[in-house]
Amino acid sequence: MPQRSFKHVGRDVPRVDGVDKVTGRARFTGDIVLPRMLEGRILRSPLPHARIRAIDTSKAEALGGVCAVVTARDLWGMDPFYNGRPVVAMDKVRYVGEPVAAVAAEDEHAAEAALALIEVEYEELPSALGMDAALAPGAPLIHDDAPGNVCAHERVEQGDVDQGFASSDRIFEARYTFPMVYHYSMEPHAAVAWYGADGIDLWSSAQHPFLVQQDIARIFGVTRSQVRLRVSYLGGGFGGKSYSKFEPLVVLLSRKAGRPVRLCLSVSEAMVTVRRHGATVNLRTGVKDDGTLVARQAEIHLDTGAFTENTRMVAQLAATRVLGPYRIPHLRSDVYSVHTNAGSAGSFRSVGAPQTMFACESQMDEIAADLGMDPVALRDRNLLKRGETLQPKLRPVDVDLQSSLRRLVAGARWRRRSGDGKAPLGMACGSTNAGGQLPVSVALVRLGADGHVSVMAGSTEMGQGVKTVFTQVVAEELALPRDRVQAVSVDTTVTPYDHSTGASRSTTVMGRAVQAAARDLKRQLRAVAAKAFGVTPGKVKLSEGRLVAGEQVMSFTDALACRFGAIAGEFVGRGTMGPEMVRWQTPVLWEVGMGVAELAIDRDTGAVSLVSYVSVADVGKAIHPLHCVGQEEGAAMMGIGHTFMEQMVHDDHQLLNPNLIDYRVPKFEDLPAEFHTLLVENRDGIGPYGSRGMGEGGIFSVAPATVSALARATGVRIRDLPLTPERVWRALRDEGEREGSAICPHTPPVP
Amino acid sequence: MPQRSFKHVGRDVPRVDGVDKVTGRARFTGDIVLPRMLEGRILRSPLPHARIRAIDTSKAEALGGVCAVVTARDLWGMDPFYNGRPVVAMDKVRYVGEPVAAVAAEDEHAAEAALALIEVEYEELPSALGMDAALAPGAPLIHDDAPGNVCAHERVEQGDVDQGFASSDRIFEARYTFPMVYHYSMEPHAAVAWYGADGIDLWSSAQHPFLVQQDIARIFGVTRSQVRLRVSYLGGGFGGKSYSKFEPLVVLLSRKAGRPVRLCLSVSEAMVTVRRHGATVNLRTGVKDDGTLVARQAEIHLDTGAFTENTRMVAQLAATRVLGPYRIPHLRSDVYSVHTNAGSAGSFRSVGAPQTMFACESQMDEIAADLGMDPVALRDRNLLKRGETLQPKLRPVDVDLQSSLRRLVAGARWRRRSGDGKAPLGMACGSTNAGGQLPVSVALVRLGADGHVSVMAGSTEMGQGVKTVFTQVVAEELALPRDRVQAVSVDTTVTPYDHSTGASRSTTVMGRAVQAAARDLKRQLRAVAAKAFGVTPGKVKLSEGRLVAGEQVMSFTDALACRFGAIAGEFVGRGTMGPEMVRWQTPVLWEVGMGVAELAIDRDTGAVSLVSYVSVADVGKAIHPLHCVGQEEGAAMMGIGHTFMEQMVHDDHQLLNPNLIDYRVPKFEDLPAEFHTLLVENRDGIGPYGSRGMGEGGIFSVAPATVSALARATGVRIRDLPLTPERVWRALRDEGEREGSAICPHTPPVP
Repeated sequence: MPQRSFKHVGRDVPRVDGVDKVTGRARFTGDIVLPRMLEGRILRSPLPHARIRAIDTSKAEALGGVCAVVTARDLWGMDPFYNGRPVVAMDKVRYVGEPVAAVAAEDEHAAEAALALIEVEYEELPSALGMDAALAPGAPLIHDDAPGNVCAHERVEQGDVDQGFASSDRIFEARYTFPMVYHYSMEPHAAVAWYGADGIDLWSSAQHPFLVQQDIARIFGVTRSQVRLRVSYLGGGFGGKSYSKFEPLVVLLSRKAGRPVRLCLSVSEAMVTVRRHGATVNLRTGVKDDGTLVARQAEIHLDTGAFTENTRMVAQLAATRVLGPYRIPHLRSDVYSVHTNAGSAGSFRSVGAPQTMFACESQMDEIAADLGMDPVALRDRNLLKRGETLQPKLRPVDVDLQSSLRRLVAGARWRRRSGDGKAPLGMACGSTNAGGQLPVSVALVRLGADGHVSVMAGSTEMGQGVKTVFTQVVAEELALPRDRVQAVSVDTTVTPYDHSTGASRSTTVMGRAVQAAARDLKRQLRAVAAKAFGVTPGKVKLSEGRLVAGEQVMSFTDALACRFGAIAGEFVGRGTMGPEMVRWQTPVLWEVGMGVAELAIDRDTGAVSLVSYVSVADVGKAIHPLHCVGQEEGAAMMGIGHTFMEQMVHDDHQLLNPNLIDYRVPKFEDLPAEFHTLLVENRDGIGPYGSRGMGEGGIFSVAPATVSALARATGVRIRDLPLTPERVWRALRDEGEREGSAICPHTPPVP
Repeated sequence: MPQRSFKHVGRDVPRVDGVDKVTGRARFTGDIVLPRMLEGRILRSPLPHARIRAIDTSKAEALGGVCAVVTARDLWGMDPFYNGRPVVAMDKVRYVGEPVAAVAAEDEHAAEAALALIEVEYEELPSALGMDAALAPGAPLIHDDAPGNVCAHERVEQGDVDQGFASSDRIFEARYTFPMVYHYSMEPHAAVAWYGADGIDLWSSAQHPFLVQQDIARIFGVTRSQVRLRVSYLGGGFGGKSYSKFEPLVVLLSRKAGRPVRLCLSVSEAMVTVRRHGATVNLRTGVKDDGTLVARQAEIHLDTGAFTENTRMVAQLAATRVLGPYRIPHLRSDVYSVHTNAGSAGSFRSVGAPQTMFACESQMDEIAADLGMDPVALRDRNLLKRGETLQPKLRPVDVDLQSSLRRLVAGARWRRRSGDGKAPLGMACGSTNAGGQLPVSVALVRLGADGHVSVMAGSTEMGQGVKTVFTQVVAEELALPRDRVQAVSVDTTVTPYDHSTGASRSTTVMGRAVQAAARDLKRQLRAVAAKAFGVTPGKVKLSEGRLVAGEQVMSFTDALACRFGAIAGEFVGRGTMGPEMVRWQTPVLWEVGMGVAELAIDRDTGAVSLVSYVSVADVGKAIHPLHCVGQEEGAAMMGIGHTFMEQMVHDDHQLLNPNLIDYRVPKFEDLPAEFHTLLVENRDGIGPYGSRGMGEGGIFSVAPATVSALARATGVRIRDLPLTPERVWRALRDEGEREGSAICPHTPPVP
């Protein structure tokens, strides 16, 4: 394929939201002020599991400045559940922090004073924190319709796994655990709702505006068109702002108060609103002596918390992602989502992957060590080739994984640094089925009479740079100076449908819709110019905002004048993407993330830190290389968080570390001296110009590469995260007391 | 053509804005409240013509609560003119009421107090009120670039008018005058501006939102896309809210204050902001003895006031409209727009027609009387037939005027009531070149996942019912229940370009764009269903929100699911109208208005009133018959206003009647007992379903029909409006002192 040269794509153009953000001018949802707006606050359960006997709101309602107090009584006649959550607790509470009532008042002081005056009579019930407690015989039942507290079971299967293990030369089996972690966006969730006479106006920090619109419409019995959801800038999403989170409660408050209501969660509230699923992964892998994978069996438990949310999808993805990017003839993975009396888990950057890839890639390293193979060679032998299928229900792998591995090995100087095999060096690699489950995006690109172009696309700008990318794509397609292209912010009345912002799909799917819309616009412009020039449309080229055929030139504004008889009117280009873009299969794309970690280990204290982390992302084609690198490095930094320090710590159901002091996230000083991401660009992605979804793949290789580096240098394999100094120190201390690795390879049983 | 039957079109469905309006829930521009919004007030010139020597705003600025005071100093470096007006007076003032400064303050009291503290030093200049003064030799020059105070001269010419008169048997000549009148919308002009960091947000009572957007962008040096103009409900437009009127001044205030500013004009302010052109029409017509028109010459002077506004267009239209709907081989009309020291004139329902049709149709009646012909017969002989041209530059007449005349004669029982020819019965008929000068409208019709449809069309709902019409058209095209269609309000960021709301063009031009968009959407739906059904798209019918082919049925939501794999996504239909719809000619349409008036005359007091007024409007096809009748009767009621009572009265440049007490508009008790409009529906219009622009034609026949009725009954021809009792009484008193009609027919001079 001839390499097309680009003018806007592939360049590190300034972010369109950059000046707004660095000058503090950018408006986030919490900055919104509406006339007569009230402040909302939520009363939350102090108990992990209890029946609500009675709620007396009369004293709160009588307080000056209080305009509305809502409880489950205000849900009468409605369908009050979304993603398994009630708008506000009905008969029971199921976690510490569950909303029991909410108040809208003239200011936050009145709202908080009112919370203290709401009297709730609870009947405490036995509770279960953690999956062991929830799965124990006789455990308290958290939902009647989830016997044994299992709310979802997903299985992926191929071949005959028993026969596969029977025919393996060696079998490896171990249990890996991954803690509950929190996204820690700089901006907690915020919403402003105005239940007006004409419909419901809602501003929300939403990654899935059209799905929130749909929930609100259903819950409040109005049409979707009557719900207008706007999204200001987001201070980080990472999946935590996917789906509705608390918006229906804010709408309910506004409906009752008859005034607009703003409700911004605190960090501690946001932390009980959404988090990543804690997980245990029992993983068993059978290999031939030459390292060829033969069979894999996984049993995964995900700590879903009190409500299901999207746990079925997380379970589906985990069931596949635990397999890694490898050719495995016989496989079975079972994922069980488990209710516990904790806040609910939801989407989090590379859903289900960090937990399962930690197990998968740790075990791959254990296998390599046992076989005496280089970890790279083991991967190389088993890595899927482009066009192969991981399992028959999925779209074949659409990426050249080998080229990423080669790039990683070269870029991280693997061979030179691995030396005698005892260096504190580890690697991991993965490819995830990404892009979301429904590649549906519609975009409009409008050329107005001033020659400026508006991109109407419903993707949330949450820091990932999607607005900038859309302006690059449109400027490229229309050969326009980029400052003549603006991307409109999400507004469900303005911007056409987009299924979601997440799953590495915005550049890929919406980007394609935007590109298609720009091309549709280009066709119209060319047709007008061709007619005026007396040539065929194919002869008309676009260049610097002008239409050119030989000596003949017209500006876009001239084209409008030709079409409309004056500098008036507009051209509207339309682009629609649907599942046909992937022939109705999933995944939309295979995302790639690989990394090599080198450690500094203090054997006396157990303190482990990264000296180097080099990662590779196959982005197909980097539309904005600096953004790509920034996102991949950001993902790796999040991976450093759950690898070394992050975990939500509970004591008797109470979250002990709901703030930045106690819940440590990586600081820049936690980054290794060598820290960079290498981009692979084979222009073979399904997105515009061969781009591929990215920004998530950087997160999941950090932990397995790190524990493998530790194991390589010390012989100690840690299978539980995070690698706190205490945990490492204990493991090193116990080293002498054990024989080799924790789980020894053994010969397969005779079938 | 087979008569298609309709389900939504042609029915008097409830207005979509009806409930909002009768419950008081409808929000008008003045109801808008933004956070930190200031109130604006304008300091206006007390002098008709003066040089501004100095303005001292320091005391005003020092007043508590005052946030910004703007004067021409704040225009530095800008292009501060729009439609000939400066944003705020520069070196001179040219009418009593011209904005000299403006204030934005915390509330209206502070703003008004501040106005009183602004010190302006004027050097008074000689001034000219009225065209006689402005055109007199040595008159003060109001603008340097308009010598003789004439700012526009438009001529329409055909044949050889001198030879035409030479070959005429009789020539009639007279002078007719028409007063300055005001639109008197219930809502005066209002705007809210917020000059923010991201661009300019503007809410305005604008009939031409996209033209206002364009002005603001140019004046403030930003792109059109950076100006977001939204239009709430309008409390009446009638042309008075065409183009920018004072919006740039509100934006200027907001820019200086750094906060949003609301500025609502009072009635007295609105009356000096825009009005109809007062006019004198010298009209000369040559006829054969059989009544055949041979030649017509007109000289028209329009009182434009201080600034040109759109006077060139008004002059162009007046030059054509004075000719009436008649076949005239030889014609010449000259229109001169004259600057005077009065507030500027602008668009007003049926621009230029009431003034000129008053002359034209009065003179036609005079000719009939002189020839002893029935007025109907004279019209019938000369009326243009469909396909004939009034003058070669115009599109041929696209309407069957004869059928309207027949309908009028029958509906008004003309022959029976005209009796001996002395009954106080008069008629007039006209057809105007309407539809505006640029038929450019773009619409989008979006079908969302809830099966509801949004119409995105930039036409202002100002009471004329345009939103209701669009929902009817879309419901008809898509065979949807009408409550599943909503029309979005104007928002330049949301609704695509529409050139203007006015000139009877919204149903016609934008209606066609909306219809085209709905059909584009229908094609997409049919294609999806056809594929699912395994039939050709032509076999798929739409019925009640479903797609049907034989036994196979799917809902629109099913079609979305088929296309997108889930109840997700959306279909976007696009419709674009441009000048090609009329083959790049004007007018877009010929609008028809005819009427018969019967009077009660009190010869003792001169009081004249209507006993009956029956009018005819050829609407092609009434999309909403009740709206059509309501608009035509409303137009006739406005005609009753300028015929009997309305005129702006000045005393030494001071408007004496800037309120509803002193400026009388018709009340319902002023309406005749018999008052109705008959609709002609030949389905031959250029709008959707053969509809034709309407709503203006009702205004211009009232005055000539009334004076003709008076002349028929009394022999007295009054050529000056309004017909106040005093004017009628004086004319009747003078009757005996004169010989016959004021201007006698005479034989043509020998060439």
